[in-house]
Amino acid sequence: MENKPISENVIQRLPKYYRYLKELCNNQVLRVSSKTISDALHITASQVRQDLSHFGGFGQTGIGYDTEYLKARIQEILGINKVHTAIVIGGGNIGQALISYKGFKEENVFIKAVFDVETSHLSHLLDVDVMPSSRLEEYLEKNPVDIAIISVQKTHAEEMAKRCIACGVKSIWNFAPTDLYFGKSVAVENINMSESLMRLIYKSKDL
Amino acid sequence: MENKPISENVIQRLPKYYRYLKELCNNQVLRVSSKTISDALHITASQVRQDLSHFGGFGQTGIGYDTEYLKARIQEILGINKVHTAIVIGGGNIGQALISYKGFKEENVFIKAVFDVETSHLSHLLDVDVMPSSRLEEYLEKNPVDIAIISVQKTHAEEMAKRCIACGVKSIWNFAPTDLYFGKSVAVENINMSESLMRLIYKSKDL
Repeated sequence: MENKPISENVIQRLPKYYRYLKELCNNQVLRVSSKTISDALHITASQVRQDLSHFGGFGQTGIGYDTEYLKARIQEILGINKVHTAIVIGGGNIGQALISYKGFKEENVFIKAVFDVETSHLSHLLDVDVMPSSRLEEYLEKNPVDIAIISVQKTHAEEMAKRCIACGVKSIWNFAPTDLYFGKSVAVENINMSESLMRLIYKSKDL
Repeated sequence: MENKPISENVIQRLPKYYRYLKELCNNQVLRVSSKTISDALHITASQVRQDLSHFGGFGQTGIGYDTEYLKARIQEILGINKVHTAIVIGGGNIGQALISYKGFKEENVFIKAVFDVETSHLSHLLDVDVMPSSRLEEYLEKNPVDIAIISVQKTHAEEMAKRCIACGVKSIWNFAPTDLYFGKSVAVENINMSESLMRLIYKSKDL
């Protein structure tokens, strides 16, 4: 079972399982049933069992899943057991919010630097290098990173992502309101807030 | 065909079609083929045709879809042809970024107020009412809104959302790193950045 390719839909749910299992482990809960997971995450119990069967997380009837084992397996599958480094391109409100968010360190992701055309408004940031965008290539040559977080205007998003990719960055986390795509050799996640807002409005139509 | 229920997966894609069609209309493009949409959005052409058939957007062979008609239909289906009002709960970096983001107005969403325990750091905001959280109920009674945008700490997210719901808010847009769920009578969209980051790391594993 372990070598079966994992579908996109399962991947979408894996971080939810991980987050919940981490909570359970933090609270010293040793075992959990698919029913309990189902109730907490609003995923059907049969879907939970099917999803977790993909990576050897077989629950035992009446005993449930071993939370520590399952958490470690999902962590490994997601790749967040390893350290990843990141830079932020664009030091506006979103960029600054991401820099100050403590939760990423829990997933072993460390933001090393922030780039902007103007940098004076970022001088209060102490834990990251504050750099002018003109020095992006120079910086990445000396300090290779895994992830570029794009939080610039829509019109500059693709160009800035491409400059990072040209310097060896393999992962683009995009917050600009445009879907970026660079073929199969670059991992991309687009956080499109406008789209989420539209879905919210759609869901509320008949309430 | 128009009354067939639209599946969750189609709903996920509708905002992408809308955004692309809006771009085409802004550029005075009158017709578009499923192939062109497919290339732009990285969705297969047959999927595009199937999705658009749900709401009467039949393309004609060799002519394609009428962009203005299709945009208007999707806008109507999503419900973004109507004005929606919103408040922001939590005036941190994310909350402020959302307030200053111009794109929401394009979807007819208007942020009316921001609430925080402390408000002095928000006094520079001119287009919204800046209010202490203690006056949330009083405000909502006088100024009913459609959407509450939750950008507080994880530990306060559910409580603040419930206070809004108790005052008649039907839609919760949640940016706190926890999935909120309030049953079928409240629309919820969770923007979970940590989950997106985990998916990004997963995608980059074999690159």
